[in-house]
Formats: sequence, C-alpha cells, structure tokens
Amino acid sequence: MKIIWVGLFVLASVWAVAQEPLPSWNEGQNKTKIINYVKKVTETESVDFIPQEDRIAVFDNDGTLWSEQPVYFQFFFAMDRIKTLAPEHPEWKTEEPFKSLLEGNIKSVLASGKEGVLKLIMATHTGMSDEEFDAIIIDWIKTAKHPSKKVLYSELVFQPMLELLDYLRTNGFQTFIVSGGGIDFMRPWASEVYGIPSNQIIGSEIEVKYENKKIVRVPKVRFIDDKEGKPVGIHYHIGKRPVMAFGNSDGDFAMMEYTEANTKYKTLQLYVHHTDEKREWAYDRKSHVGKLDKGLDYGNEHNWTIVDMKKDWKVIYPFEMKE
Amino acid sequence: MKIIWVGLFVLASVWAVAQEPLPSWNEGQNKTKIINYVKKVTETESVDFIPQEDRIAVFDNDGTLWSEQPVYFQFFFAMDRIKTLAPEHPEWKTEEPFKSLLEGNIKSVLASGKEGVLKLIMATHTGMSDEEFDAIIIDWIKTAKHPSKKVLYSELVFQPMLELLDYLRTNGFQTFIVSGGGIDFMRPWASEVYGIPSNQIIGSEIEVKYENKKIVRVPKVRFIDDKEGKPVGIHYHIGKRPVMAFGNSDGDFAMMEYTEANTKYKTLQLYVHHTDEKREWAYDRKSHVGKLDKGLDYGNEHNWTIVDMKKDWKVIYPFEMKE
Repeated sequence: MKIIWVGLFVLASVWAVAQEPLPSWNEGQNKTKIINYVKKVTETESVDFIPQEDRIAVFDNDGTLWSEQPVYFQFFFAMDRIKTLAPEHPEWKTEEPFKSLLEGNIKSVLASGKEGVLKLIMATHTGMSDEEFDAIIIDWIKTAKHPSKKVLYSELVFQPMLELLDYLRTNGFQTFIVSGGGIDFMRPWASEVYGIPSNQIIGSEIEVKYENKKIVRVPKVRFIDDKEGKPVGIHYHIGKRPVMAFGNSDGDFAMMEYTEANTKYKTLQLYVHHTDEKREWAYDRKSHVGKLDKGLDYGNEHNWTIVDMKKDWKVIYPFEMKE
Repeated sequence: MKIIWVGLFVLASVWAVAQEPLPSWNEGQNKTKIINYVKKVTETESVDFIPQEDRIAVFDNDGTLWSEQPVYFQFFFAMDRIKTLAPEHPEWKTEEPFKSLLEGNIKSVLASGKEGVLKLIMATHTGMSDEEFDAIIIDWIKTAKHPSKKVLYSELVFQPMLELLDYLRTNGFQTFIVSGGGIDFMRPWASEVYGIPSNQIIGSEIEVKYENKKIVRVPKVRFIDDKEGKPVGIHYHIGKRPVMAFGNSDGDFAMMEYTEANTKYKTLQLYVHHTDEKREWAYDRKSHVGKLDKGLDYGNEHNWTIVDMKKDWKVIYPFEMKE
C-alpha cells in the first residue's frame, strides 16, 4: 500500500502548489502574518498548536465581508421593501419616516433616528412566517442592485476575504459570521455566498413565536448583536472563545478584545481598514457607518493586523477578476 | 488507478459489515424504520434524497439521551452545589427552600414550586464568569454520583442512543441537542459524551453580559427552551426545519410537530417510551418529570416511532456492556 499513499501524497502536494493561498492578497507584512499564524497553530509539532475543535474564527459581515456604503445594505432592503408594500399602505403617504422615504428624501429618513429606523425595520421584517421572510430576502438579493455600483449586492463581497474564509476552512477552522445585521436577513443568502452554514451565522434578532406549526416574526427586537453584544452572541451560539476575529469598526472591538483575551491559545485580530476611495470607499474615524476610531488606535498599539485595502488587496470584488 | 479504488472500496465494505448499525437495538419494527428512513433519504438516486446540508437531526437530552429520574440531573447539581456553598451562606439555615434542602427534605424543596426552584438555580448558576461556571460543572460531572444508581451521571446515558447519534453522523446528518436543560450546564461535558460540538447544543439560557473581557452570568432567565420554545430555539440556533426529531415527553411535542410539518423533505419522529422499571424507570402519562401523554396518543396515531425501552433495547447504559 505504500506506493499508493506516496502517490496520493504527491498528488496532494501538486494540488497545494496550484492553490497557493490568498492569491488576491499582495505580498507583504499582513499576508505573511496571517499565513504564519495559521501555520503556527495547525502544525502538530508546534508549541502553539490548536486542536481542530477549538479553531473558531469569527467574522463581522458589513464592511468586513462585503461593502456597507453609503448605508448598510439591509437598510436598502428595508427601503426597497417599503416601496413594494406602499400601495397596500396609503397611510404611509402622511406618516413619517415612510413619507420621506417614499418621496426619496433619505437624509430625512436617517434624521428620524433610531425610532424612525425601527419603524421601517418592523414594517418590513415582521408579521410573516420565517419561511415567507426567507423568500422575500432571496427575491431581493437576486434582483436588487446597489444604487451607485449598479451590481447585485451579493457581488459586493470582498474577493480577498472569500479566499481567507476558504483558506481557514482548508486548515480546519470553523468560520462564523457575527454581525450587527439581522440573523434572518443574512441566512437565506450568506450560506451560499460565503460557504457558511446557517447555524454558524449569528446576528441581531427579532422576536419570534411558534404558532400553527410555523415560526412567526413578531415586531419586537430580541437581541442586538453589536459592540458588547457580540461576545454575548458568541457565548450563546458558539460557547467558546474564538482564536481569530475579523472586523472593520468599533462595533467589532469587544469581539476582538474578547478573542485577544483567550488565555488558552495564541490569537489573531484583523481589522479591514477602508482606504480605497477609488475601488471601494475610504472612511474610518468620522464615518456614520462603520466608524473605526478607538479600535484603530488600540489595534495599532497591540500588533493587530490592520489591512490597508488599497495596498494589500489586488482586487476588491470578484467581478474585477473577470474584467 | 482503478485497482486502488476497487481495493479501497472492498476495504470500506468490510468495515461496513464489521460495523453493523445500531448493535444495541433489537431487531424489529422500530430499528427497521430508522434504518429504512436513513437509507431512503441518503441514497443519491432516491426520490426522498436529502442533501447533506439539510440533514438536521434534533435530540432532546433529559430522558432521551440520558436518564432523568427521580428528578432532572441538573437539579441534583443545584442541590449538591447548595451543600458545597452552604458554609458561606449562614442565612440559608432559615431561608426557604435552602433550609429544607440542607435538612434533606427534598419533597418540601420541590413543593416550593417554580419560585423556589428558581431561587436554587440563581444561587448556583449565576454570579460567576462562564469559564468559572464551566470548571464547576466539569468538577461535578467527574465526581458526583446518582443517589440510587451509584454511578457518575455521565454513565447514565443511553447506549442505543449513542449508537444512533454515531449512525446518523456517519450518514451525513448533523446532530443537535435541543433541551429544556441549561445550555451552559450541558456544554462542558456533552461535547465529549455525545460527540456534539458546543455550537450544536441548544438549551435554556441565563442572561449574560460582557464585562472586563469576560462573559458574566446574571441572575435572570433569558430563554426557556421547552415546549413551544424548542422550535424557537431551533430557529435562532439552526435556522432550518429539522428532518429528524427525538424526544421522550410532551415538552418535546412542539419540536417534533414542527419537524413533521417540514414540507420539503420526508421526516422521522421518535419518542423514547420509558417502559423498563427494572433496568431504568417506567413512567409516562402521570410522571412529574418527563410526562408523556398528549404526545403518546398523537405519535401512535401519526406513525411516529415509539421506542419501547424494555423490548427494543438490548442494553440501556454503556456500563452494562462491560458486565
């Protein structure tokens, strides 16, 4: 049998060379840091070896795995949905923030604050069964286009991060999404787009109840998976401290700090810094979406990996590779 | 290469024969029903084929994977813990239900009702970090013994169900626990005992908060994963309707009904009926723990698999195999 195993081993090696990891990442300090970390914690003889069941990697979604400008894409979904539902709701012609939204006055919608946004979320995300909501989301993600990029929202995922997800899974990591966005907004499409099963997608939650053999969505917020909520979401859904954490904003800071404080294993924290105003967007300390201020200072001081999108990434989106 | 593949195939076949499924199950209708179902939904050419990512099997824990008499084992943990902590709490000598518990008057403790039990749970399950709580549970599960069976609680798991869990995983199913018991009470030991990773263990939840880089347990109930709560827990943690559901009481009924109402795939529901007063316990319609009444009638009428422990299982516990 020895010849067979040698043969398979040679085949595997050829495959590994053909599939050099992270092809869309430019050579440099950040790519090296990621690859060195993965080697260190996966080589059996390494002092930093992590058993496979504890290789937990958590990823924020908005701004980390896909874009989030000029507003979170889930907000675009809510706006599109309000327009679709408007004929059934004549009262929205006079009721804020629906009135402003239907008149195309987005600034005024955003100015309505938390309360206004919550009204939009409840009107568009609740009152139906979970299976009906899934169908609405799938229809939207397959057809709706980003206002300035003019492509499907699912095309605005980051190619280098897709490669990173694959690379980690190939090395025995379990990849989880831990997002401030809605858990039920992501699940219908994110499994396919990111290769992450629904039970590894964590996010903010609407109340649901079991009724007539169905899960029905109730107009009440159950859980906000943001800031200090992220370690809490990780606790309930994963039940283990992660060893790798990926984010792009101060909203991810608690999750990354929680990961860094893992006393059992060597860890890695990575911030995606949006520095590319040409290919994507450039924003950080003063942005109303994905603000990165405290985290940038802390990360720089604590040897976190700060990805410079402009310098570190050969391409941003998958469609650039076909061009 | 053809010879190699044929060789591997022969090896695999020999292995399959050696590992005949469900060895601790007696031949009969119930064993046949399970094996036929698994064959039907996993054979690629079958009209009932279920893709691997949708092969979700959910298991209740208390009374389904391990025993639950004379009271839920988590209640024994709480009682043992109260005794351990008593020297630090002189006030318990006069405060109910602590007083009765410390005097060994369990009937009076149980008579204190929900409110009394909740006091015991809060005093024993909260106020520490999650990692401290894990250590307490691990210490208990490794040392505490069942009052009448005189073995570790983890030895009171059902051998036939361990085989079923393995059999399903071998056939590409993902196995989840969906228990009324505490999610954080189960996770520290259940992964090892049942081969189920922590993120696939769902249960009732205590509130937690993120503080000083730690998850801290707060004395408040967050979620009860029982009855209609089970489909809700499945929704948040799995995000898909299961295709197989395993329970033993009316508390599992909603989860099993929710599974049965899966319109996409063929499903299987199984009740473990406690009929063996000699090797385990015999109870159903009138039991204060694990009451099975409505579910037994419904299951019998709807072709659910009703396991008769006495007739269907060659052994109950793993230790019987060594005897």
